[in-house]
Amino acid sequence: MSSIKVGIECLRRGRPIFIYDFDEREEEIDVVVRADYVTPELIRWIRKNAGGLICFVTSEEVGKKLGIDFMTNYLKMSNLELLLKKPGYGDDPAFSIYVNHVNTKTGIRDKDRALTINRLAHVVKLAVNGNIDEAKEVFRREFYTPGHVPILLGRVGRRFGHTELSLILAELAKIPPALVITEMLSDDGEALSREEVLKISQEMNTVVITGDEILKYVGYVK
Amino acid sequence: MSSIKVGIECLRRGRPIFIYDFDEREEEIDVVVRADYVTPELIRWIRKNAGGLICFVTSEEVGKKLGIDFMTNYLKMSNLELLLKKPGYGDDPAFSIYVNHVNTKTGIRDKDRALTINRLAHVVKLAVNGNIDEAKEVFRREFYTPGHVPILLGRVGRRFGHTELSLILAELAKIPPALVITEMLSDDGEALSREEVLKISQEMNTVVITGDEILKYVGYVK
Repeated sequence: MSSIKVGIECLRRGRPIFIYDFDEREEEIDVVVRADYVTPELIRWIRKNAGGLICFVTSEEVGKKLGIDFMTNYLKMSNLELLLKKPGYGDDPAFSIYVNHVNTKTGIRDKDRALTINRLAHVVKLAVNGNIDEAKEVFRREFYTPGHVPILLGRVGRRFGHTELSLILAELAKIPPALVITEMLSDDGEALSREEVLKISQEMNTVVITGDEILKYVGYVK
Repeated sequence: MSSIKVGIECLRRGRPIFIYDFDEREEEIDVVVRADYVTPELIRWIRKNAGGLICFVTSEEVGKKLGIDFMTNYLKMSNLELLLKKPGYGDDPAFSIYVNHVNTKTGIRDKDRALTINRLAHVVKLAVNGNIDEAKEVFRREFYTPGHVPILLGRVGRRFGHTELSLILAELAKIPPALVITEMLSDDGEALSREEVLKISQEMNTVVITGDEILKYVGYVK
């Protein structure tokens, strides 16, 4: 089986996979897992072995249904124009708001972040199944902002970051657009190399997939 | 010497100290270090051994000088009213915006976060030394938002979280109000206990200080 088919199958089953974006973009690998299968133990594994920000990913469309926008748009209404630059690699940031579930203790503990992420996945499922009023209602009742879990909104077809690549894989795996992604960091202050992540993925019996492989598989052109 | 005096001395010298807030508040311990002494190696230590969000702390007054406000106030201008609840422990959140330095690669790597934090400390020093126009100018030129380092603004005397407790210690240590704080997490999904942090602090030859000790030392009443 091709690594992309193995990746889709691992993702569907709730196992972590690894995605490298592109040369001359971030040149980073993120660990990716479906949000409804996240446990406190997995959050612990991610913070100890990945080290980046533990982010919740959904699509821009779901964000619209829930009534949330990109952080950049919220801050445009303020006096912060000069701070609204693009990152060095050139893309608009995917960040929306940061949330906690109301039943968390402080929002940051592994149990807290797993609860926030699991319930966000529930809200996304409601939204994509057409129960938009209920999704909005549960979202507003069960969450508060600012919190400790950033929500990233993906612009599939228009942006080609880890956010969007993971959403493409979710669609291929026929799972909801609700994922967790986190950057794999290296002990030398940089991003973990493909060789090092490949070793980890083999030990875990999962795969590293590249953005090029994903786009080729679905026939997208960047 | 009392543990609080040792803590002040460690903080001044750029060594990590640990602060427990209060029973019936977060009941968490944060590692605290002065921001101008942060290195990529220290960021790595924090993400591997603390595990929480790596946050930059300054005072509300410095935030005002730089022209940044609480995230809650930015989001009040939006349609998110129902999400603007308080955390379970009751305080208003300290979160302002999230930033990256413009010379970072992606913002999340240890070298990136150390650079962002070191240059934020530089901006704070300019502001507290009365060079407010220069501070604002450097801040707007060298940073962008949204990024990967949350800025927390402390309300000393009115709020009693890790943010404010670390600012009180910074004042006692006669260092700028520019610190990094991160929650110490446990492998069981909760916060790391005082016993466990005490063991770590002894191995590192530093201290755990409580909010009660800090407030008693400065004569604040909660």
